[in-house]
Amino acid sequence: MKKQILFISFILSYANIIAQSSIDSSDYKMLRIIYDEALTNGNSYENLKYLCKNIGHRLSGSENAEKAVKHTKKLMEEYGFDKVYLQEVMVPHWVRGEKETAKIIGSKSASEKPIRICALGGSICTSPEGLTAEVIEVKNFEELIALGEEKVKGKIVFFNRPMDPKALTSFEAYGGAVDQRGMGAIEAAKSGASGALIRSMNLRQDDYPHTGAMRYYDSIPKIPAAAVSTNDAELLSKLLKEEKTCKIYMKMNCRALEDVKSYNVIGEIKGSEFPDEIIVVSGHLDSWDTGEGAHDDGAGCMQSIEVLRLFKALGIKPKRTIRAVMFMNEENGLRGAKKYAENAKTTREKHLAAIESDAGGFSPRGFGIEASKEKTEKVLKWKPLFEQFGLPEVEIGHSGADIYQLKNDETALFGLSPDSQRYFDYHHANTDVFEAVNKRELELGGAAMAALVYMIDKYGLK
Amino acid sequence: MKKQILFISFILSYANIIAQSSIDSSDYKMLRIIYDEALTNGNSYENLKYLCKNIGHRLSGSENAEKAVKHTKKLMEEYGFDKVYLQEVMVPHWVRGEKETAKIIGSKSASEKPIRICALGGSICTSPEGLTAEVIEVKNFEELIALGEEKVKGKIVFFNRPMDPKALTSFEAYGGAVDQRGMGAIEAAKSGASGALIRSMNLRQDDYPHTGAMRYYDSIPKIPAAAVSTNDAELLSKLLKEEKTCKIYMKMNCRALEDVKSYNVIGEIKGSEFPDEIIVVSGHLDSWDTGEGAHDDGAGCMQSIEVLRLFKALGIKPKRTIRAVMFMNEENGLRGAKKYAENAKTTREKHLAAIESDAGGFSPRGFGIEASKEKTEKVLKWKPLFEQFGLPEVEIGHSGADIYQLKNDETALFGLSPDSQRYFDYHHANTDVFEAVNKRELELGGAAMAALVYMIDKYGLK
Repeated sequence: MKKQILFISFILSYANIIAQSSIDSSDYKMLRIIYDEALTNGNSYENLKYLCKNIGHRLSGSENAEKAVKHTKKLMEEYGFDKVYLQEVMVPHWVRGEKETAKIIGSKSASEKPIRICALGGSICTSPEGLTAEVIEVKNFEELIALGEEKVKGKIVFFNRPMDPKALTSFEAYGGAVDQRGMGAIEAAKSGASGALIRSMNLRQDDYPHTGAMRYYDSIPKIPAAAVSTNDAELLSKLLKEEKTCKIYMKMNCRALEDVKSYNVIGEIKGSEFPDEIIVVSGHLDSWDTGEGAHDDGAGCMQSIEVLRLFKALGIKPKRTIRAVMFMNEENGLRGAKKYAENAKTTREKHLAAIESDAGGFSPRGFGIEASKEKTEKVLKWKPLFEQFGLPEVEIGHSGADIYQLKNDETALFGLSPDSQRYFDYHHANTDVFEAVNKRELELGGAAMAALVYMIDKYGLK
Repeated sequence: MKKQILFISFILSYANIIAQSSIDSSDYKMLRIIYDEALTNGNSYENLKYLCKNIGHRLSGSENAEKAVKHTKKLMEEYGFDKVYLQEVMVPHWVRGEKETAKIIGSKSASEKPIRICALGGSICTSPEGLTAEVIEVKNFEELIALGEEKVKGKIVFFNRPMDPKALTSFEAYGGAVDQRGMGAIEAAKSGASGALIRSMNLRQDDYPHTGAMRYYDSIPKIPAAAVSTNDAELLSKLLKEEKTCKIYMKMNCRALEDVKSYNVIGEIKGSEFPDEIIVVSGHLDSWDTGEGAHDDGAGCMQSIEVLRLFKALGIKPKRTIRAVMFMNEENGLRGAKKYAENAKTTREKHLAAIESDAGGFSPRGFGIEASKEKTEKVLKWKPLFEQFGLPEVEIGHSGADIYQLKNDETALFGLSPDSQRYFDYHHANTDVFEAVNKRELELGGAAMAALVYMIDKYGLK
């Protein structure tokens, strides 16, 4: 691509601003100042690097999670925010133990071939000798039920419905496939299965198993459940077609320990006019115990802290209280978010708005809004302004799992919407490392959050 | 990020469609079919892999460029397009020769430290012994002129103005910095410099020099010019601040050879009603001799071929002729594009529209439009439809350097606009390899081009 006419879009964009009489030029200028600071002196990228490289993944209850709590508290204290504190919460403590192993047994063409699995979060272990059983493949729960107990009993049920590539966003594809991971062990156990193997929630073909939350019901026997890489899922499916039967050996020694005390980490800039009206910016500090929890959700945490840093660095004195919340335990319990919401209710804290970034540190495209009609309409009036900052997708949509616990008529919820296409290349897998995050994309996301906070703080939502 | 409420955006998006009375539901359905095919049976990713891995980079005049011509012609023939042919054009033949070397000389703290450079495309060589000279840093041409001949004579001018990180798109940042690369050697030579060293056009700090086109004027002495990696540019600048003077040794044996015969590669599906009205989809087949020319512009070529493949695979019989053009020599001469436009003029071919993809194989966000007011307004009416496919940024803007040669009142020009943030991480550097391209992002771009072609073909632009 050559240099020719590269300024056209810039010039036109400026002309556009002038034409957009609905944009207050002082708002445009202020947002421009916020973006300039974020893109030239932004701290989120270096902060994310520290979190990923010096601490690493941060599963609830782990030593790393506690390190991350201490570190982010200290970080916000060093920034000199008006108030920095911890909010205690008991969290689950599940541990993976030794790395899982699995292999194909007795196949004509692939005997003893190792396959790449990882235990789903919350799964029970196999016996110390491991589990060896025939594999039966299904695409969904209907197929499983149709097979009947006779055909399933004692076997490992292999759930192999891919994320739908036809979905335009990767979240839509995820929504259409993740029931296998969440409910697979329950549904398989209902028919007497001995284990569950689930195709990783990943739109591409590769060798990385992707973990994630799963459930058990007390009334249904618990069976071990693991994710298998998309490449090995294809291999397994091919073998089952060719050889009709196939056995798998899998060994996992993960287990749930006693709940552990942990914390949400909170930092605030006090509002000058309406200090009791709170605008939350948030991410979750815990991650799965794979990769470094870079996109999920170190990115959202460091963007949230960056919002407060931007206000402080630029000397913007908010009318309302801006609060950065790093929730603990989003991945396997939402305990932090529930605790936070419970406390907000008890103490009658007034949350005007809450924004969550938990869809990866990719190039932002807009915000999803979950709010009353009145508040939604107010925000939609700012659309032309946000469009000037490359955020055309300001629309009714998803906010975030943590802040959803705050849902009520008074609180407007927002989710930062980054481009979603690459998210599941990294989600809950060893690939979710700092190097997978682009500095500018991360910074633009933080700036977008700060821009929304600025507008809500200035105009309120009434 | 958890599964919760992931369907909301999907459901709302569907409700949106119903509400958008301006969208013809048959168009929505047809575009959905095009996207489904592109995302499930898309060939562009595998085709790009072949081009990158089995051929590699493809500088005009090189053996690889000729291989790429033969290969893409064969590829389109195998798809059974109605007509596949070559259009002859003479192209420049510049060769890099042995890999360049450069090092810092006589510095107190970094003597003999190698620095990473690469010759700019079109540069002359140094003498066989190399060039050793003092370095003088400037940020722009004004600074250079202000220094005066006395201070510049015999020195290597180091142009070190970074791409502006405040720019919201990377192309805006590029537009503001690329004069240094294009005109640096001329401006430096005017003041008697012996060489020019230009900070790479790259928004991030890394070790890769980025090549690209540069110019000489016949009336001004020609001096060797090279790009230096952003990390080494920072190092050099620091040394110059600390030690005041600093020498560089650089050796390059690049040179321009005789022009070589090459080709634009063209494939068509003939229109059923108006075969003389042509809609071009295009990319450029040549690349720099770094990396594999994956994003720049193997991606655009394979997306263009994919547009025709999609029409054929889905049995869509276009009314107008859809023509995929792989231009030769976009990077250092635009000879292919000029030849194509000249030929179109001579033979009075009627080009209704031309679309170029030459901004990387990233997640598409819309199209830039360069067309008459009437045609622009017609296309803007389709905005609500394109928004349903994640393409909100359909707006007046940049099209493409190749198709710009076709510019006239009758032809509407369009550039596919992908997300731009990561483009200059790869542009003209060894990092521009197949692995830097995401399958879905590439496929969505091809589908977007096919969608636009479908609409233009169906409704025309009057």
